[in-house]
Amino acid sequence: MKKKENINVSKLKIIPLGGLEQIGMNITAFEYEDSIVVVDCGLAFPADDMLGIDLVIPDVTYLKDNIDKVKGFVITHGHEDHIGSLPYVLKEVNVPVYATKLTIGLIEHKLKEHNMLKGTKRKVVKFGQSINLGQFRVEFIKTNHSIVDASALAIYSPAGTVVHTGDFKVDYTPVFGDAIDLQRFAEIGKKGVLALLCDSTNAERPGFTQSEKTVGRTFDTLFEEHKNTRIFVATFASNVDRVQQIINTAYKFGRKVVVEGRSMVNTIDIASNLGYLNIPDRTLIEMDQLKNYPPNQQVIITTGSQGENMAALSRMASGMHKKIAVGAGDTVILSSHPIPGNEKAVTKIINELLRKGADVIFQDAHVSGHACQEEIKLIYTLVKPKYAVPAHGEYKHLRAQAKIAEGLGMEKDNIFILSSGDVLELSEESAAVTGKVPVGGILVDGLGVGDVGNVVLRDRQHLAEDGILIVVMAMDRYSGQIVSGPDIVSRGFVYVRESDVLMDEAREVVDAVVQNCIDRGISDWGKLKNTTKDVLGEYVWKKTKRRPMILPIIMEV
Amino acid sequence: MKKKENINVSKLKIIPLGGLEQIGMNITAFEYEDSIVVVDCGLAFPADDMLGIDLVIPDVTYLKDNIDKVKGFVITHGHEDHIGSLPYVLKEVNVPVYATKLTIGLIEHKLKEHNMLKGTKRKVVKFGQSINLGQFRVEFIKTNHSIVDASALAIYSPAGTVVHTGDFKVDYTPVFGDAIDLQRFAEIGKKGVLALLCDSTNAERPGFTQSEKTVGRTFDTLFEEHKNTRIFVATFASNVDRVQQIINTAYKFGRKVVVEGRSMVNTIDIASNLGYLNIPDRTLIEMDQLKNYPPNQQVIITTGSQGENMAALSRMASGMHKKIAVGAGDTVILSSHPIPGNEKAVTKIINELLRKGADVIFQDAHVSGHACQEEIKLIYTLVKPKYAVPAHGEYKHLRAQAKIAEGLGMEKDNIFILSSGDVLELSEESAAVTGKVPVGGILVDGLGVGDVGNVVLRDRQHLAEDGILIVVMAMDRYSGQIVSGPDIVSRGFVYVRESDVLMDEAREVVDAVVQNCIDRGISDWGKLKNTTKDVLGEYVWKKTKRRPMILPIIMEV
Repeated sequence: MKKKENINVSKLKIIPLGGLEQIGMNITAFEYEDSIVVVDCGLAFPADDMLGIDLVIPDVTYLKDNIDKVKGFVITHGHEDHIGSLPYVLKEVNVPVYATKLTIGLIEHKLKEHNMLKGTKRKVVKFGQSINLGQFRVEFIKTNHSIVDASALAIYSPAGTVVHTGDFKVDYTPVFGDAIDLQRFAEIGKKGVLALLCDSTNAERPGFTQSEKTVGRTFDTLFEEHKNTRIFVATFASNVDRVQQIINTAYKFGRKVVVEGRSMVNTIDIASNLGYLNIPDRTLIEMDQLKNYPPNQQVIITTGSQGENMAALSRMASGMHKKIAVGAGDTVILSSHPIPGNEKAVTKIINELLRKGADVIFQDAHVSGHACQEEIKLIYTLVKPKYAVPAHGEYKHLRAQAKIAEGLGMEKDNIFILSSGDVLELSEESAAVTGKVPVGGILVDGLGVGDVGNVVLRDRQHLAEDGILIVVMAMDRYSGQIVSGPDIVSRGFVYVRESDVLMDEAREVVDAVVQNCIDRGISDWGKLKNTTKDVLGEYVWKKTKRRPMILPIIMEV
Repeated sequence: MKKKENINVSKLKIIPLGGLEQIGMNITAFEYEDSIVVVDCGLAFPADDMLGIDLVIPDVTYLKDNIDKVKGFVITHGHEDHIGSLPYVLKEVNVPVYATKLTIGLIEHKLKEHNMLKGTKRKVVKFGQSINLGQFRVEFIKTNHSIVDASALAIYSPAGTVVHTGDFKVDYTPVFGDAIDLQRFAEIGKKGVLALLCDSTNAERPGFTQSEKTVGRTFDTLFEEHKNTRIFVATFASNVDRVQQIINTAYKFGRKVVVEGRSMVNTIDIASNLGYLNIPDRTLIEMDQLKNYPPNQQVIITTGSQGENMAALSRMASGMHKKIAVGAGDTVILSSHPIPGNEKAVTKIINELLRKGADVIFQDAHVSGHACQEEIKLIYTLVKPKYAVPAHGEYKHLRAQAKIAEGLGMEKDNIFILSSGDVLELSEESAAVTGKVPVGGILVDGLGVGDVGNVVLRDRQHLAEDGILIVVMAMDRYSGQIVSGPDIVSRGFVYVRESDVLMDEAREVVDAVVQNCIDRGISDWGKLKNTTKDVLGEYVWKKTKRRPMILPIIMEV
């Protein structure tokens, strides 16, 4: 009987094209028959071994191959790891973009920078509203996160409903707008949900993430304690609510506020134009006006809380900022936690600020934007999905969420920890990974997209490690005799002026090997190059235990 | 009256030659008239921007310039950041080395590797024993730390006594040997101490560091909970007590133990030869014998708890280890905390192990080896120094200790946060920084010591970022005409096979600029090179927004 009922219903496919196995680059395709909807289109920041790379975008071959099916991008919120690849991907898959107001505002700013505003369809969606995209209907549901206007999605398909939380936390007392729409989660759950894709970032952390409002109270206390000093607050450029709270506290204490750092100025501009920031009159001033106020009436909100070298805070701390310097008597509040991998950079800036005589507060003025274990349990309990697909996190986070789901009584077989590229096919009857589509990170370096691959990266790593030795010589095309050189030029190997013995000997070694080749009548220059490379490489290794890149160049004259 | 009393007494100088401003490279000179004693001689691991560098050793110009005064090195304990530079520095300042038994054992191992055992005088000192070094007498005092045989020093000079804690914690129930000799600290304090140099590493942490023994109890619990699986424990190679406790628990549960990882095998070898490890008969076995025992009778102790790429644990996790692989059903205990900067690497290995199906325990199986705030207060209260010189830590740690000292009632003016190279002159009457000696980090790359400096590092960074373009041409010596080229060879710039348009255009640009120079009669090849560099650089920037190194080479024929 059951079989008959579903006989004409195809399966729903969930295909993460990025976002698993690494931090960032969130993008997931939902496919049902002739329709594909893509949730998010983020970038990843380069791993430590991706030398010189600016950012990493997803390989969307699968979308290009199925371009007729792709109905649109549905974006959950405006963080880089969810919107950052749009300008690149839209060039190849030009479909409409749907998101809430602030998210669209941030996307438009990005498109403008890439001169793509005209060619891109985009639509602001309100919470509670649905959009029809082929065989899908997608509903936007209010959540809370470290950026306003974050949304969960209910994705309705003939095969069933999927709930995608996006990045979220449960904040009963948010700074701006409503708390997460738990009633709607419950309502949808009550009707039956096929699968839940839930944020795993904090799945290892017990308890409940604190409300953003608690940070506001912390600011009140800290401003009270540092009544007599100038105050700097560094935080994430995109955290509009945090900026709002700093402004609120500053206003309460009769301080003027300057905002510094390009990305923060941009975000605040966009957010206040769209009505997401409420700035009391005459509170925000320009940097140049600061001198009209005593230090204890000043607050500087700035980027650089992750210790980024070129951000405003670093420049203020090192005296490289044109207009302002942090010094003795100042108070600096780092309203953030170091993102994994940034710990050393953050420590460095703390040391630098302390050395300059500033008082640095780097604890307690931050809360996370992601749900901890009790919040994840709450969402599972409201949504009651048949299948769980932990999303957004490294493997250990996904696994921690899988354990939570098990703890709530879900069957192990109904929990899927996917890898990017996995095709998960779902119906009421069954779910299984049935295939794999091509995925990967495409490296962006300057204007080049994808022109730096493994070969180039390996060369950069090699060059970074021990530098390069270039052996150059000119050979007579006809006689096969050397007419100039061989000369050796090095970069990044040794300080040549103090290593003349080594370099002289290396030259002799090359001389000998080249002459020997010529004497033996070797006229294959490929062979001559390889022999030179091997012999010089061995000599250098013996003398220095280094393996610089060795590049023989022969000029024919 | 007081003045008269001290009229013939010189001042004591304390000169840190490293160890402040960075992690590692601990080395401090104590100077009184014609005598210098040096405490510790450690190395630092390279900072992230020191590409290709293996390690960093201190600049000891000051010691070389005063070589007749230097009486010896006194070493507090056997960690790399306290002994690692000895083989390099002893080559230039060959004086005797004094330390406790295990520390000398570890130093000898190091000297043997450098073929320096014969030429180096060394002497084992017992706790409570003193050695006379010129005008100094140095007493070794038992402490506790994450390596056995750690020692504090009482440095007696005619100008007064200095207590140097070394790296320490207060462990009332150590695994091996006695608790820290608090009575002796008190006794020396009672007689009057001029200055205290105290470990600041954990000065930001409230409370009291837990006893190493608590980790043993954790092992008991974990082994009980994972009775049916094979167990891997990764920890620091030098933590002999930790290894002892793993062995104790393994023995209790009837498991055989294999030790894996070169540095750990070495340390265990040295420690057990010297009697610092107590291994029950037939507990330690060879890797090859493992197959004779079921998984639940096996324990593998291994290096790699910091996620080091080439360490045993990484190789076991990635399937690159020749003899053993971590897999489904195994339990892996990381008995360590990530050292700042290693967080991402540690997370990576946890993800890898989980993916392989192992159960990974990475919390609660570790305690620190450094004193927290309450322990620091205890030492200050026992020693009651006139002056405080916070040691061992970054600026923020030193400052946190200074605050502790202030909290204990010390006067701000009597607390000195030094920078490396500062000369602090002390007497009962006064203390002040009176000068500066040359200090710095000397980079070691392979066999090269100091042949990589800022120029080479900058080149490596440049090469790492965007690669290199080599423009090579052969010119007739007499006519000044091109006889071959110009050719462009690139490495680490773009994947050339897919960028032929760019490379062809670049060649045209170079052709044009060189021809133009020749036509204009420019015969200064330096000028020709610079013009080529500028024009090609500008073209490449316009096209790619990258700045590869551009290296024009002209061959004269």
